[in-house]
Amino acid sequence: MSAETGKEPGHLSRRRLLGVAGATGAAGLVAGGAGGAVAAEAVRDQPAELASVGRGEVPFHGKHQAGISTPLQAAGHLAAFDLAGDADRRAAAALLRRWTRTAAALTAGKPAPARDTGVARDAGPSSLTVTFGFGRSFFGRTGLADRLPEALGPLPDFTADHLDKRRSDGDLWVQIGADDPLVAFDALRALQREAAETAAVRWQMSGFNRTPGATAHPMSMRNLMGQVDGTNNPKPAEKDFTAKVFVPENGSPAWMAGGSYAVVRRIRMLLDTWDHLSPERQDQVIGRRKADGAPLSGGTETTPVALDKFTKDGAIAIAGDAHVRVAAPESNSGATMLRRSFSYHDGYRDDGAPDAGLLFIAWQADPRHGFTPVQRKLDRGDGLSRFLRHEASGLFAVPGGCAPGDYVGQELLEG
Amino acid sequence: MSAETGKEPGHLSRRRLLGVAGATGAAGLVAGGAGGAVAAEAVRDQPAELASVGRGEVPFHGKHQAGISTPLQAAGHLAAFDLAGDADRRAAAALLRRWTRTAAALTAGKPAPARDTGVARDAGPSSLTVTFGFGRSFFGRTGLADRLPEALGPLPDFTADHLDKRRSDGDLWVQIGADDPLVAFDALRALQREAAETAAVRWQMSGFNRTPGATAHPMSMRNLMGQVDGTNNPKPAEKDFTAKVFVPENGSPAWMAGGSYAVVRRIRMLLDTWDHLSPERQDQVIGRRKADGAPLSGGTETTPVALDKFTKDGAIAIAGDAHVRVAAPESNSGATMLRRSFSYHDGYRDDGAPDAGLLFIAWQADPRHGFTPVQRKLDRGDGLSRFLRHEASGLFAVPGGCAPGDYVGQELLEG
Repeated sequence: MSAETGKEPGHLSRRRLLGVAGATGAAGLVAGGAGGAVAAEAVRDQPAELASVGRGEVPFHGKHQAGISTPLQAAGHLAAFDLAGDADRRAAAALLRRWTRTAAALTAGKPAPARDTGVARDAGPSSLTVTFGFGRSFFGRTGLADRLPEALGPLPDFTADHLDKRRSDGDLWVQIGADDPLVAFDALRALQREAAETAAVRWQMSGFNRTPGATAHPMSMRNLMGQVDGTNNPKPAEKDFTAKVFVPENGSPAWMAGGSYAVVRRIRMLLDTWDHLSPERQDQVIGRRKADGAPLSGGTETTPVALDKFTKDGAIAIAGDAHVRVAAPESNSGATMLRRSFSYHDGYRDDGAPDAGLLFIAWQADPRHGFTPVQRKLDRGDGLSRFLRHEASGLFAVPGGCAPGDYVGQELLEG
Repeated sequence: MSAETGKEPGHLSRRRLLGVAGATGAAGLVAGGAGGAVAAEAVRDQPAELASVGRGEVPFHGKHQAGISTPLQAAGHLAAFDLAGDADRRAAAALLRRWTRTAAALTAGKPAPARDTGVARDAGPSSLTVTFGFGRSFFGRTGLADRLPEALGPLPDFTADHLDKRRSDGDLWVQIGADDPLVAFDALRALQREAAETAAVRWQMSGFNRTPGATAHPMSMRNLMGQVDGTNNPKPAEKDFTAKVFVPENGSPAWMAGGSYAVVRRIRMLLDTWDHLSPERQDQVIGRRKADGAPLSGGTETTPVALDKFTKDGAIAIAGDAHVRVAAPESNSGATMLRRSFSYHDGYRDDGAPDAGLLFIAWQADPRHGFTPVQRKLDRGDGLSRFLRHEASGLFAVPGGCAPGDYVGQELLEG
């Protein structure tokens, strides 16, 4: 439900639905006559009122920022910005005010207030979300060291890390997601223009998920290794979801109430090595069947993983170093996080391997009880880690959402 | 109409359409209850039989290869491969046979015959197309110099070129397009595996277009400058379309009958410079209004450009160096081509500018009467060229399509 329009973006009237059938038939005829290798496709020739993906709108304002519990979008950009040498707390506050104003407009399908390029003008907001966070270095640079959250302490070193510092950390972090890549790109450019003299891009990465309508199972992501990912994520409908993901109202520091912590890792997958494993061996490394995501302890994708189950042969169903075992909350004193990642593919490396993997993003109320203990355990005992390289890392404090007229981070910067 | 299944992929029954309405309502309720910043989106929660984007299927076999007159897909990969030093004509023929078999399977939504990763198994073919071409260097390396088409002569140097040779040319060229990025990536990986000992990736680039359903005007592309692109493209329904785009049946060399020539250019856009122009000035540089694509000589997007029209003030409506004037067939003795491009965005350059622009792909029956004369003219007189850098270039001979059981390029390699 869009707070601004009061309209449910997902609702299609029966009249409109019947409208598609007519348009589809006509498109089929036209395209079918156009030569041997041309196929009709309903979704491409649909009339304006049925551009359902473009119409998707995620409210910007609210208790929490959008882009955390929002369903995965098809295109994503992550960008870190560093403040200019002469940018002080006041300049940072002005930047967050400009960014908030721009994000609020674009996510509602309105032109960017400062200067709209018109690049994505012909589509709706396409479920655009823009999420802002602060890195540890931000606090020292703006004289706000006394407001640095304890939870934003540096992540420990892990033995599997091969981190590129130039693509890690940063004063400010922006996550952009949208179901149309041009809408997402336009938002990134708009924010970069607003940063102008105040902050410059430190690093930027782009990723993707499934196109809406490509698969009937879009809610759990399928990563580049082919594994269904995120099945065991906390679900918004579960009663402890909010406690796991968001800082409580009476949490500390006060300016983080309703906020969350994002751990960002660029995880390259050694796909050539992985592809040499037999499908059975791949399933054992993960602890789930690639084909349908079902745990090797039995059932379907959504069946809880039974870590103590044995097979008929007397072997443990889910191996001691299987990824799902080592990462399970039961193996980590209940530590959990909301994983909401994008795949990436940045061409090929000089060694001939694809530069591809996961822009891993994990959300939690406190990384010391989420990502950090789980990754410590994975780092020591996960059979999957042989096929992964963590190449960049960041931890960001993402404050709660703001009300119309306010800006994200206002309580930090003015409180 | 899919040749293989006899089913129109675009056709949706009324029962299925009504099925969406029910699913949409339910999804709206569930998502609406999940917290402040979560919006429902119909397309994400649709049942399996309505994954309409995934179901899209473009026939692989036919007179022409697919991916030329096929409507633009959302995700694209271009890759050039160089033959290994010891790979001869026979090895190349075996590779094309393997590639053809794999492409025919994947584009029909079937597993890759040699080894399927299952990565994209949960989606349909998502309008996947795979198109194969031969670069000039292929012919010498395989002892086929006598079959080198005259039309495959090197492109002339243009003054606006800043070409990176390592990202230009290549023995073999593959174009992959699909409406789902995971399907496209999986196809690229499958072809790379098949190349194995015979050929290695020389360069690879990825791009995107609009997500199906994001905009009501998906057939003309909107590029990263915001301009509607491709309005003036020859249309498959026009009677001279085939003559413009494809080599005739009695054309020369005989193995290229039904084929086409692809000019590939990586064109970086100087977006920071471009964005500093006023919208009015941008429109003058192009000769069309960004907002709706209408030519400055009047009318709507599809109104023919009137090059000799004057404004009320007595000025020429479309400037002497406007892109649409310099590129128009009327300015180039009728020279025309089918532009079918993808946008690209590969992060940011060291100078802080986005590494972004157009993976320009132009199709024509003969580049000497298509791309080359037009680019010669643009190179001298196009006002837009100040904002563009051609960074890579390739010209490829793309043979006609093949029948089931045959392989692409068979007449060249065995004829």
